[in-house]
Amino acid sequence: MRLVVIGGNAAGLSAAARARRLDRWLEIVVLEKGPVISYAACGLPYYIEGRVRRLEELQVASIEEFRTKRRIDVRTGAEVAAIRHASREVALAGGERIGYDKLIIATGARAVRSGIQGTDEPYVFPLQTFTDAERLRTFLEKRRPRRAAVVGAGYIGLEMAEVLRARGQRVAVFSADDRLLGSGNGTLRGALARRLERFGVELHANRPVRSLGELEVDGREPDLVLLAAGFRPNVELAAEAGVEIGRTGAIRVDERLETNLGGVYAAGDCAEALHKITGRPAYIPLGTTANKMGRVAGANAAGRRERFPGVLGTSIVRVCGLGVGMTGLSGEDARAEGFEAVSARIEALERPEYFWGVKITVELTADRRTGRLLGGLVMGERGVAHRTNVIATALEGGLGVEQFQTLDLAYAPPYARVWDPLLIAAQQLRKLLS
Amino acid sequence: MRLVVIGGNAAGLSAAARARRLDRWLEIVVLEKGPVISYAACGLPYYIEGRVRRLEELQVASIEEFRTKRRIDVRTGAEVAAIRHASREVALAGGERIGYDKLIIATGARAVRSGIQGTDEPYVFPLQTFTDAERLRTFLEKRRPRRAAVVGAGYIGLEMAEVLRARGQRVAVFSADDRLLGSGNGTLRGALARRLERFGVELHANRPVRSLGELEVDGREPDLVLLAAGFRPNVELAAEAGVEIGRTGAIRVDERLETNLGGVYAAGDCAEALHKITGRPAYIPLGTTANKMGRVAGANAAGRRERFPGVLGTSIVRVCGLGVGMTGLSGEDARAEGFEAVSARIEALERPEYFWGVKITVELTADRRTGRLLGGLVMGERGVAHRTNVIATALEGGLGVEQFQTLDLAYAPPYARVWDPLLIAAQQLRKLLS
Repeated sequence: MRLVVIGGNAAGLSAAARARRLDRWLEIVVLEKGPVISYAACGLPYYIEGRVRRLEELQVASIEEFRTKRRIDVRTGAEVAAIRHASREVALAGGERIGYDKLIIATGARAVRSGIQGTDEPYVFPLQTFTDAERLRTFLEKRRPRRAAVVGAGYIGLEMAEVLRARGQRVAVFSADDRLLGSGNGTLRGALARRLERFGVELHANRPVRSLGELEVDGREPDLVLLAAGFRPNVELAAEAGVEIGRTGAIRVDERLETNLGGVYAAGDCAEALHKITGRPAYIPLGTTANKMGRVAGANAAGRRERFPGVLGTSIVRVCGLGVGMTGLSGEDARAEGFEAVSARIEALERPEYFWGVKITVELTADRRTGRLLGGLVMGERGVAHRTNVIATALEGGLGVEQFQTLDLAYAPPYARVWDPLLIAAQQLRKLLS
Repeated sequence: MRLVVIGGNAAGLSAAARARRLDRWLEIVVLEKGPVISYAACGLPYYIEGRVRRLEELQVASIEEFRTKRRIDVRTGAEVAAIRHASREVALAGGERIGYDKLIIATGARAVRSGIQGTDEPYVFPLQTFTDAERLRTFLEKRRPRRAAVVGAGYIGLEMAEVLRARGQRVAVFSADDRLLGSGNGTLRGALARRLERFGVELHANRPVRSLGELEVDGREPDLVLLAAGFRPNVELAAEAGVEIGRTGAIRVDERLETNLGGVYAAGDCAEALHKITGRPAYIPLGTTANKMGRVAGANAAGRRERFPGVLGTSIVRVCGLGVGMTGLSGEDARAEGFEAVSARIEALERPEYFWGVKITVELTADRRTGRLLGGLVMGERGVAHRTNVIATALEGGLGVEQFQTLDLAYAPPYARVWDPLLIAAQQLRKLLS
């Protein structure tokens, strides 16, 4: 039995490692088209910042470890040109063919470039791979650019706006619509816009970019452009082989992460996942999800029967010192999905003042018809991951607002207040629901 | 209609305030025997530390606010001598009688002193009230004691051990048994014992104290003794009036917090609460619980029908810089309660090293028969409240280990790692269960 995994990052390697743990005899081959495997892409902005000194620090595991410790045949520079499911084999770009019994597609996603002219210029950078990061850091050190245009206001765009600003550059962010961090939530937009302004970052909303010539930073042409206009799933290889693509544009999978082709699984940034609140497939590419999907795909490819329960889209990001955490649906999202959504927003100290308490914002959204919590947003300079995860756990447990407002949370002055901001927000929301 | 509340702290005042919000016509009288109301007792160690400069900072609300803004008649120095339920009145120590239609007993708890001889000495201090705190701080400043004996290894005992050590004293803690922070958990005991040793605090376990003459600190007689040997619920007044006392020694209440006497409610440190995991009444006096119980008792006294859902005993405390968070049952507790408990303990970084990640300990306990999570312990210098609360929320939602291990938690390098220590612990626990 041979398992072939296409893609040597979060999802692909989690899958391979899990399959090995469950089946010591399985032959496992991982094909990675790039030069490195297993890197923590989310750390790349901090390499540009300088906090991460060497890219190797972002390497989670080495090829050698996979080969010797886990007996997994990991090959870099191995680009798959075609999947031939009829004959159960993949063809590499160089011509080699590798047969498989089970196949896991973990081809990831790529930065959106299409539609923008001039992106081949040497001062234009995506930030997705080690190569991108190396190129950008070298450019920053050698050329010392002064005006950076960031195209896209998603996670990487805003993280990089902070990093470039901290390096002393003038920075302008261009967003094609009025969404920030992929969200149309008004509370989030207001707070982020104020924060960016305070840090001297220009924010241009509703400014789709068609050519680099349109960009201006501080009234002049930029000498650095960061492309961060989102990701698109790498599905071409799968689609050509007859793998079904879902409405979101990513690979459609069932709850065992199997595609429409028997024995062919997909996981990570190339695949859809069930959204736990809407019950519908969603495309929310995140590293945490990729790792979890990989484990399940690997287990199933190794003969187990495991379910991937789905996602809440829980995320956190730091933008100019402001932590922004989200999980589930915002009021705006929930209404678009047909819920009768009600939201409550509060601001409160997260600790007593004598323990340097800072004000944080909590917005909770619930369904008026059922009283069930649908999602939450937490923003502040501290205590954000904490509370985002409590909301995520409540969503996982299907808690209603009534139940959430009496959660037995921990209190002691160095850490919290008697009434946590989460509970205060829930009390407000409950009043709006009744 | 008149509501009388006995006790002017967390539970009593929450009850009065809630009753007022729900019924603007109700006459509300709060009788507090001490000189102040509404103080955050959990902040007292930090007043002794000096971080809290004036006791008034620990005052949550003033008598004036209650009187004018909420039209609640709050009286201090008003000691209730008897409850005469047959005639629906309370008698004050001075002789005055006050009739009631509804009564809320929120008499709190008192520091255990009984059985120890010599506790009236001027160098012996409990730490429960403003008066205690004032006395102790004055003593520390005027007498500059050098050797402090702390009797009791609960929350206040260990918090005060840190505070007194930080003020330069030799400190020894005496515990009657081998429990620390009220827990018999071995992981917790080991970590705390090491931490106390590192900070030069002597820990004497299994050393019940019968007379102050037995105490030695650094081989000599102490010149300061802190009494922190736990709390006992103030139930005498209630018991004399025919209110039923539960097995735990605290006032027995139903889920609406009504006692066996119709129209008489109890809330806070004098009352039992349902434990959500065992399903049995428990006595776990905490400020968070007192506030929540007060709200429910106040609502019911004002004519609503609300349930108090119970407690998980979630708590957190900082001891010599180590955060210790607990919720639900430890393995030891769970076995004593008849569960077939299985625990897994892991140590892991809570963030990437390049974001100053520190190692934290997570111990999760589940029931082998059902796979349901029963409780958790989190210890470390950071990220403890966060994870304790996630576990508490999972317990509230009745999550199994299977479901817990796939929680969609937030990740970004400044805040977390791709696999949170909670999920790693759950994966370990799941292996032990299967």
